[in-house]
Amino acid sequence: MSDVPKTHPRYLSLTLRDKIVRGVEQGITSIHGLIAHGRGEAFDYLIAEKTQHFATAAIHAAAVMLCLAKHPVISVNGSVAALVPEDLIELGQVLNAPLEVNIFHTETGREQKIKDHLLKHGAKEVLLPSTEAALDYIDSNRKFVHPEGIFKADVVFVPLEDGDRCEALRKMGKDVVTVDLNPMSRTAQQASITIVDNVVRAVPLLVDQIKKISDKTKAQTLISQYCNRTVLEEALKHIRRGENI
Amino acid sequence: MSDVPKTHPRYLSLTLRDKIVRGVEQGITSIHGLIAHGRGEAFDYLIAEKTQHFATAAIHAAAVMLCLAKHPVISVNGSVAALVPEDLIELGQVLNAPLEVNIFHTETGREQKIKDHLLKHGAKEVLLPSTEAALDYIDSNRKFVHPEGIFKADVVFVPLEDGDRCEALRKMGKDVVTVDLNPMSRTAQQASITIVDNVVRAVPLLVDQIKKISDKTKAQTLISQYCNRTVLEEALKHIRRGENI
Repeated sequence: MSDVPKTHPRYLSLTLRDKIVRGVEQGITSIHGLIAHGRGEAFDYLIAEKTQHFATAAIHAAAVMLCLAKHPVISVNGSVAALVPEDLIELGQVLNAPLEVNIFHTETGREQKIKDHLLKHGAKEVLLPSTEAALDYIDSNRKFVHPEGIFKADVVFVPLEDGDRCEALRKMGKDVVTVDLNPMSRTAQQASITIVDNVVRAVPLLVDQIKKISDKTKAQTLISQYCNRTVLEEALKHIRRGENI
Repeated sequence: MSDVPKTHPRYLSLTLRDKIVRGVEQGITSIHGLIAHGRGEAFDYLIAEKTQHFATAAIHAAAVMLCLAKHPVISVNGSVAALVPEDLIELGQVLNAPLEVNIFHTETGREQKIKDHLLKHGAKEVLLPSTEAALDYIDSNRKFVHPEGIFKADVVFVPLEDGDRCEALRKMGKDVVTVDLNPMSRTAQQASITIVDNVVRAVPLLVDQIKKISDKTKAQTLISQYCNRTVLEEALKHIRRGENI
């Protein structure tokens, strides 16, 4: 690991860099994930590296949508596996939802390594893609999914997702909850609920929010009032207004 | 190298990615440099991948400040060494200033590899950090500098710098000229002059500008009129107005 001193004012950000670099070294994260991480850092600067009101609104709606789902599934790629393994596992526990590995760059064995990494961090069960089930509307190998996981899910939590796959899931009638720091990304635009926030802040907050939901019927009202388009516009406005300087 | 065709609309950007990836493969650039590069790409998009007026203003002031320096030094890290080795060497020649290697992540031998890389590209002399001299106000190993280089410099050119070190140099009374695509970064905020531009565009323009300065006394007026705070605000306004997104 790195020698970044704890007194460094950007200690947290540099620690996250270390985690994602460590992910690459362990064969969990694609090297392309590093550049994507850098882009995320830029957008995080533009929201002052804080969970802003539009993210909180999305987290509240996402908590309800995931709670009300009949078969929620958590899709895990190499970046989130490196950054927030424990939080994803806890999210799976509170929702009673399986984790399923799904990655864009499929270097040999990487899917299994991500699974092992999650199991090591305490996951009970981790699904892998299977050639027995595939998503429609998608060409790449990301179409393959597990028949008992994403294939039959009604709501999929897919943080840091690829736009193509998000679109395919939506076209198949599934609801998608994503976390994406770029409100202009295709994923952000196409998801049912987009949490514009850093995944390391958003996932723990989502878990806390789910734990707080006691009355599901009452919670349902929140969903019907939620508009993702408005929330994304708020995020863009916030970035452009320059409120953080 | 990569097989990106010259007709590709993002040829230049992809070529730069190749250079930085090649830097990692050669042991010159830290793998963390890929993340920083990705962050830079995002900010470069936001300024339309062009040298904007605020960068031109900073380049003009920086040229004067470096020309008037008694002992200017060029600090080189693994990312700029991979991206613009020839331009840094030419900058050193026109200023009669030494290049000094200074890096954040000190994998064994990387400093020497950067030195060798610069010598191979035509540098006459490259200084390395020495335990004989150290900067105040800094914890990490970046405090070590060369006694005849950064230690006694009055103006340091430090493109793509770490905020801590920039702050330490400033506290020691040195002027700092930096190139940083993020106008909100600690380095950008703390430098004497911040060129908000891509280093591959900014350094050649800086060299050209220095060559044009004939009357140093007249040039000095430009420095006294320059306000880095205003230039950074202009850069931020430009990004936030969303003219290019």
